[in-house]
Amino acid sequence: MNAVPDKILHQSAALDARVTTPFPGSRKIYVEGSRPDLQVPMREVSQQATRGRLGMEKNPPLALYDTSGPYTDSAREVDVRRGLPALRSAWIEERSDTIALASPSSRTTLKHANDPATAHLRFAFQRPVRRAVPGANVTQMHYARKGIITPEMEFIAIRENQLLDAFMAAHPALAKSHAGHSFGARIPTFITPEFVREEVASGRAIIPNNINHPESEPMIIGRNFLVKINANIGNSAVSSSIEEEIEKMAWSIRWGADTVMDLSTGKYIHETREWIIRNSPVPIGTVPIYQALEKVDGKAEELTWELFRDTLIEQAEQGVDYFTIHAGVRLPYIPLTARRVTGIVSRGGSILAKWCLAHHRENFLYTHFEEICEIMRAYDVAFSLGDGLRPGSIADANDAAQFAELETLGELTKIAWQQDVQVMIEGPGHVPMHLIKENMDKQLSTCGEAPFYTLGPLTTDISPGYDHISSAIGAAMIGWYGTAMLCYVTPKEHLGLPDKDDVREGIIAYKIAAHAADLAKGHPGAQVRDNALSKARFEFRWEDQFNLGLDPERAQEFHDETLPKEGHKVAHFCSMCGPHFCSMKITQDVREYAESRQIGDEGAALEAGMAEKAKEFVAQGAEIYQEQ
Amino acid sequence: MNAVPDKILHQSAALDARVTTPFPGSRKIYVEGSRPDLQVPMREVSQQATRGRLGMEKNPPLALYDTSGPYTDSAREVDVRRGLPALRSAWIEERSDTIALASPSSRTTLKHANDPATAHLRFAFQRPVRRAVPGANVTQMHYARKGIITPEMEFIAIRENQLLDAFMAAHPALAKSHAGHSFGARIPTFITPEFVREEVASGRAIIPNNINHPESEPMIIGRNFLVKINANIGNSAVSSSIEEEIEKMAWSIRWGADTVMDLSTGKYIHETREWIIRNSPVPIGTVPIYQALEKVDGKAEELTWELFRDTLIEQAEQGVDYFTIHAGVRLPYIPLTARRVTGIVSRGGSILAKWCLAHHRENFLYTHFEEICEIMRAYDVAFSLGDGLRPGSIADANDAAQFAELETLGELTKIAWQQDVQVMIEGPGHVPMHLIKENMDKQLSTCGEAPFYTLGPLTTDISPGYDHISSAIGAAMIGWYGTAMLCYVTPKEHLGLPDKDDVREGIIAYKIAAHAADLAKGHPGAQVRDNALSKARFEFRWEDQFNLGLDPERAQEFHDETLPKEGHKVAHFCSMCGPHFCSMKITQDVREYAESRQIGDEGAALEAGMAEKAKEFVAQGAEIYQEQ
Repeated sequence: MNAVPDKILHQSAALDARVTTPFPGSRKIYVEGSRPDLQVPMREVSQQATRGRLGMEKNPPLALYDTSGPYTDSAREVDVRRGLPALRSAWIEERSDTIALASPSSRTTLKHANDPATAHLRFAFQRPVRRAVPGANVTQMHYARKGIITPEMEFIAIRENQLLDAFMAAHPALAKSHAGHSFGARIPTFITPEFVREEVASGRAIIPNNINHPESEPMIIGRNFLVKINANIGNSAVSSSIEEEIEKMAWSIRWGADTVMDLSTGKYIHETREWIIRNSPVPIGTVPIYQALEKVDGKAEELTWELFRDTLIEQAEQGVDYFTIHAGVRLPYIPLTARRVTGIVSRGGSILAKWCLAHHRENFLYTHFEEICEIMRAYDVAFSLGDGLRPGSIADANDAAQFAELETLGELTKIAWQQDVQVMIEGPGHVPMHLIKENMDKQLSTCGEAPFYTLGPLTTDISPGYDHISSAIGAAMIGWYGTAMLCYVTPKEHLGLPDKDDVREGIIAYKIAAHAADLAKGHPGAQVRDNALSKARFEFRWEDQFNLGLDPERAQEFHDETLPKEGHKVAHFCSMCGPHFCSMKITQDVREYAESRQIGDEGAALEAGMAEKAKEFVAQGAEIYQEQ
Repeated sequence: MNAVPDKILHQSAALDARVTTPFPGSRKIYVEGSRPDLQVPMREVSQQATRGRLGMEKNPPLALYDTSGPYTDSAREVDVRRGLPALRSAWIEERSDTIALASPSSRTTLKHANDPATAHLRFAFQRPVRRAVPGANVTQMHYARKGIITPEMEFIAIRENQLLDAFMAAHPALAKSHAGHSFGARIPTFITPEFVREEVASGRAIIPNNINHPESEPMIIGRNFLVKINANIGNSAVSSSIEEEIEKMAWSIRWGADTVMDLSTGKYIHETREWIIRNSPVPIGTVPIYQALEKVDGKAEELTWELFRDTLIEQAEQGVDYFTIHAGVRLPYIPLTARRVTGIVSRGGSILAKWCLAHHRENFLYTHFEEICEIMRAYDVAFSLGDGLRPGSIADANDAAQFAELETLGELTKIAWQQDVQVMIEGPGHVPMHLIKENMDKQLSTCGEAPFYTLGPLTTDISPGYDHISSAIGAAMIGWYGTAMLCYVTPKEHLGLPDKDDVREGIIAYKIAAHAADLAKGHPGAQVRDNALSKARFEFRWEDQFNLGLDPERAQEFHDETLPKEGHKVAHFCSMCGPHFCSMKITQDVREYAESRQIGDEGAALEAGMAEKAKEFVAQGAEIYQEQ
């Protein structure tokens, strides 16, 4: 047994309590699938009873989609030095198409494994690396196309349903929902494992889960499922410790990040990534060119295919679930950016543009794309085809450079699909509202409906310090139009590195955007949570209102600033209007009045009977509300 | 001369410096109109020069629409005890259709004027109250329909243009703009006083400026102009001082509020409002029913037309510029709300619903609507026809109750227009994205294109603590579709009373929404500010990037958290990527390369010439960027 590297993880095994404390009124539940080792986690929010005139009326608990993993399970303890349990190991092994390697295949990994200088940073409890047996293809797309429903697919079906079918049948009043407008998305009322398989087989959805990341809880990215969000973490020249990065990851998933990208460009990239993956229950994405560039000391022109290839293998064997690959930054497109207001703003895009210019050769990611696919399918790493030429300003939105690259991403998607490699497509960036739909429509038609994964887009450039908001507007809209995953933007975008507070702000803004999109698409059951919260609000069940929200802690804290007393959390009024003056209270009178007369939706016709009731109402003191 | 009430205004005449300090790199300018007393204020932001390879290239200053009044003019001192200068007095008086009253007409005002208990709260430097001479109509709509262009209209035309025509002609590169999609809005490239007159005459726009608020800087609300935003202030049962309310008003306009609503329901409503109006350069709106309810100790059923009428006159004579009047909450519609998830959530709506039920009589605001119009036209108070039955949750959006009330608001608009009284229409509230456009379209057709003024709408209910974001999404969209003014929502919505930080967050979120809407509509010149900021960002002119943003202070603060050193503000890199790794820096290489080859937009065809250049590029060290 290896020694535990205490020096790196000063705080020992436990993370900051802010990161791991379960949300109030909530408990972790597990829904079992067709086999005992298929346990789908959810957060169950309990609700208080409604105090009505005829006694107490129970309110049902609600099961919510939960990305936070074992960290928020009070029955489990996470030791980050050991990593999370490998819940998918048995599923991977029983497919008998992978082997455990005697040692990693990447030169970099071997170097790191034997480097005394980083010994103190090494993750101690590594499992052997797995790879497809020669000739095998281990992608979820490959299985799907063979007609195989994997445990991962079943896990996802249960997870996406969130027990809503049973809930809605039992509580029809809370299930009331508007018909959505889905722009051609086809979302079933109940998601079956077979539906998941079909979507993955068609390429309309991806399941990013590398066979070397068995700790991950399967999730799906596709426009016929719930809209997902990604949070970026990672150290940079300004150093941050490995411990901080693990904490940022756990913090991100606490607030609802569905995947996390490790964009580290600073010291100890290899080691940082290892620790993050071993402790992450969500898929981890990376941009391998960042590390490749570090290996050549930042000199883009010195990048080579061989060096890049080794980086891909290094990261694939660590367990990275999806790679951003900027293979669409083709040499002939680069001059198209020259007249832009903000040129090339993608880091990956600019590195490759510099390489192309220096060598006057076509982008090596484009020329070696088939070989990249071969690596991807041996570990089941999904492509996130990078939009290296995305616009960096409103002025540059939807221009020739961006759409030229998108055409190439469409070609590359077809090549990847020939090898059953999963693909999603990255999108902008900065787009005014009226040009957002054009992006979505072009992406769907050009890329054969492969999932779209956009950064915002920001809908104006004049909001430094608040770009999470200007981009949440664009994200909600493009999510509604069909984008499958939204990459968050924090308030620090364009200004500095996000801290924990910024990460939380960015994630909640994007959870709002994703959920607003689900509602507008008419995702079955999306409105149930809104309805439950609205009912709690109307009935002054303050705690339930907090707990059903995206950030129960913030909601309670804001409430307590004005009305701090415990008693006020059951108060039948709120601080906006005070105890003598509350519209919701008055509405209760209206409702009880209408109900007592069995008035339906034909109010005008029933006016006749009201005069008599009015007298009675005044006689009762015009105050039906019952004081506690 | 009256004594100055020092007891109330402990801080003496000066407000908190945070409220009044001019923004960095900015100065107040005044653009003179056709007469010397027509001085239109703007904020001029200066820009640093661009350091190019061929020397310094100047960047022009930009004039921005400025709502902050004299508070941010370093050449003027505001003494809140004396109030702002009455810049419109001469314009009002020279129309010779108003008289100065010997004493106010409202019973309440007379009572307050002589009440020793509130003597210490009284504003000392009151001007005589003005009213239309008998039979006269003093509304801007009335003048417009007579073909008269008032100084107010000319002021607005200059203000809306922001000197952009000259700027765009002089700096075509910065004027680059996408064609918008305006859903039928007709926005001219240059706004003339005559265009303002036509829009007001047609009812498509309103100029809320009471003749008793001559301190106000004229502004316009209409969908063929810039989208405006409103901020709510006001005390409640939880007390806040008059001083705090003045400061909240000045704070709101600092961040960009175009109008401010005083929603006070607590103590000293009359006095608080007086102080706010005397110190406000933006139009002030109120909901008179709130004060009327205070007068009957919160007992809605005791409200009477006479009492309400006196309240209208009281407030009109103080100078309130627009009144929210919930005349559409008709008795037969009330039962339509009974089956809602959240009933009636408008405070005004619920008060009137309670009154209607208690008396079983039609809403007295509806039955006395013509008399209300007579009051409005005697002072030029504009209607904001309240949506008392707006939905309070996603579940209740676009229901029968809401649309029934909207029909009535359409009828009332026509009645008001018969008396040349200006009207805007209030709208929701809580609406999922796919149902927002229906609201806008119905409002336009039902209310004869009277300006729409919406609260958000929130696009989901699950975001307590972040409702400024969920509603900014809806606000941006409905602004794009045609809403003329957006009422802000703060992070405290549904939870507590906003403090100064919340007000700032709410306003900036709404400035983003309004500007994103202007961009998407293709408002001429809206993109100029984005372009200037994007160019500054691309050129690492950090200070300019901050100063051109909506919140220069926040942007600089965020930047300095990561890179605090002064020298870094001229650094050609940013903290996200560090000094060795910057996409913008690399892009400069691309641009210079392409420019040196005179490469246009036909990149592919020009590929041939690149090999030679590639050699040269490497020979130069593959690093064209010049270190400072």
